[in-house]
Amino acid sequence: MPNETLTSAGFKVGSAAAGIKSSGGLDVGVVVSETPCAAAAVFTSNRFCGAPVTIGRQHVHSGRLRAIVVNSGCSNVATGKRGLDDARAMCARLAGHIDAKTTDILPASTGVIGAFLPMDKVLPGIDAAFANLSNSPKAGNDFARAIMTTDLRPKTAFRKIRVGRKDVVVAGCCKGSGMIAPNMATMLAFLGTTAPISPSALRRALRDAVGTSFNRVTVDECESTSDTVVLLANAQSGIAPIRNTVAPAYRAFALALKEVCQELAYQIAADGEGATRVIEVAVRGAATATDAHEVARIVAISPLFRTAVHGGDPNWGRIMQAIGTSRARFETDRIVVRICGQTVFRNGRPVESANLARISRDMKAKHVPVLIDLRAGKVHDRVLTCDLTKDYITINADYHT
Amino acid sequence: MPNETLTSAGFKVGSAAAGIKSSGGLDVGVVVSETPCAAAAVFTSNRFCGAPVTIGRQHVHSGRLRAIVVNSGCSNVATGKRGLDDARAMCARLAGHIDAKTTDILPASTGVIGAFLPMDKVLPGIDAAFANLSNSPKAGNDFARAIMTTDLRPKTAFRKIRVGRKDVVVAGCCKGSGMIAPNMATMLAFLGTTAPISPSALRRALRDAVGTSFNRVTVDECESTSDTVVLLANAQSGIAPIRNTVAPAYRAFALALKEVCQELAYQIAADGEGATRVIEVAVRGAATATDAHEVARIVAISPLFRTAVHGGDPNWGRIMQAIGTSRARFETDRIVVRICGQTVFRNGRPVESANLARISRDMKAKHVPVLIDLRAGKVHDRVLTCDLTKDYITINADYHT
Repeated sequence: MPNETLTSAGFKVGSAAAGIKSSGGLDVGVVVSETPCAAAAVFTSNRFCGAPVTIGRQHVHSGRLRAIVVNSGCSNVATGKRGLDDARAMCARLAGHIDAKTTDILPASTGVIGAFLPMDKVLPGIDAAFANLSNSPKAGNDFARAIMTTDLRPKTAFRKIRVGRKDVVVAGCCKGSGMIAPNMATMLAFLGTTAPISPSALRRALRDAVGTSFNRVTVDECESTSDTVVLLANAQSGIAPIRNTVAPAYRAFALALKEVCQELAYQIAADGEGATRVIEVAVRGAATATDAHEVARIVAISPLFRTAVHGGDPNWGRIMQAIGTSRARFETDRIVVRICGQTVFRNGRPVESANLARISRDMKAKHVPVLIDLRAGKVHDRVLTCDLTKDYITINADYHT
Repeated sequence: MPNETLTSAGFKVGSAAAGIKSSGGLDVGVVVSETPCAAAAVFTSNRFCGAPVTIGRQHVHSGRLRAIVVNSGCSNVATGKRGLDDARAMCARLAGHIDAKTTDILPASTGVIGAFLPMDKVLPGIDAAFANLSNSPKAGNDFARAIMTTDLRPKTAFRKIRVGRKDVVVAGCCKGSGMIAPNMATMLAFLGTTAPISPSALRRALRDAVGTSFNRVTVDECESTSDTVVLLANAQSGIAPIRNTVAPAYRAFALALKEVCQELAYQIAADGEGATRVIEVAVRGAATATDAHEVARIVAISPLFRTAVHGGDPNWGRIMQAIGTSRARFETDRIVVRICGQTVFRNGRPVESANLARISRDMKAKHVPVLIDLRAGKVHDRVLTCDLTKDYITINADYHT
């Protein structure tokens, strides 16, 4: 297995069990670059956002960061002025260790909301995580675990591309299980690259990559109060600087970044709360990009469709019912629906020759592909989700604030 | 118990077990007026709609109807030209019995989609239902049962108002359990009144009533392919005709109609698939009507919030997370959230004095009220939903097409 962690992109990481999580597991992590990095970040658009999101937006505004400090177990949301002070204090603590400014650090927190951070545990935790700083793969994997909440598995991804005679690495990790259960889950992704790249080109590449990855996954259509994706570029690869989006290496870098983000996003869908399989809703033949996305999303968020997939039911009726509520351009009689590669709906009618028993068996696999051809144009898109199961209800109904 | 059925408004109804449902239960119903009625109807906005919706829209266009014919067990959706012919044939069969035109009849169907109506059963069923035509309360209750699919209970409502020296009755029944599970459920409501009223005033009253009742209920946010609400006015009360919306009796009639619709809508939420309790999400202090509706709806459709209610968890975090994704005008720090009458969130922070154990106990009741005060204006609204339970998954995952 290649080293799929942030350490493969030349970052040092450390983690510690500070006692924030009642389980006693790893709950504080730091990512440190030896040199200043170009930085870009994308945050939740939820207006009820956490203190670390507010502070993170301010700190990344310059396009430069040196480090990231993160904790799990408490999200520092709905904590007012004291929450903002706590998020800044986390940054200041790490800044003191690496001779940087507080504003050179991006903070992130995930876990229960409405509670103040236990700073008596968090600050010593940051010290301990810094003391463990290492560039070993194990350190990278520990960091991926330190940011988990209801996740069952750590999530990492890695790409190496060749630019001229040199390698450029893009690597990262993320967490997220309920797309958001604001009590216990949040989507956080930490990405690093050895590419030398300007902040503006980095922002563009990240925005594009997130648009086709993290923004194309839905578990329960509930956007977190803490979602944060941050990318640091430390320039260690030594290739010619990518100064803008027309630079020769930009396209290869942006593609690698997109693939890393998509791989991480897939892992989020697979680890969705209660999920037993990933559903890929692909749309083609749409008249516009908006139409393609809307139709894919409207099917992916349907609880009726997601429960049908859980039951192994090739229920094209629930797909067409969902599509019928969209505003996309199409004629219902022209739409073709395929489940697991077999056409089940065409010409406004079910396809009587479809082998439903076979499709039902195929739907028991870990990956269930659904293809909707609107036959109204040439644009395509896709959204990932997971099946809706009784375990989702258990995880979310039996949890108590 | 008052006679809460359509027969109390001077309509004759009949029903029959035609063998469309495999259970052998009642599955065909007819509603007949002895005289022509002013009529108004509201249909699903789903573009993938059933043949009876297409035909029903055409027939009600004149503002006049004599009768309604309905079957359960098969929705006649995704059936192409043959489906349209079948829906018309249902109307023609009943029209032949009452010396009316085919276009004087409104058809409705609910049940599995993608299958043709078994006309060899449906047409004799219409004959049998007509043969049973009666104005008895029992006939009215049988009709309310004949339209059920996954519903556990028949749903009826009734109001009598005094206009001058005469009584005016508004009565009706409906079915619907998944707001829509297109395979097995649809929202159908059949309403009758003895008021003499012009079609245009009737349309206005129905549109207004539906806006604050059936359009304020969500079980799974999946809009059916067959939803139909139809109201017939037979003028039997003998009061002065209500020719427009400024007529003296209009306001009293419209209020009675709204109350009947709201009572029926409440019964749909209470009988939502898998539901153990009704959740009322009330919003006040909104800047606009759009804002009030959007905030109430965005909370009511949140699966995280609905599962939390099922678990008896006063989870204001999931309410604020949902509100944070809306575009309504508000400052998060000004919002006040009450659950079961107790304030749990204010000034951007949880209210520490809230008795969460007491609220959790109160949330076990059949009715859970949530009040959100945006403190941004003077407009209010409310949306009803039900808790999200494992039984919803069971009903929808274990069902096979």
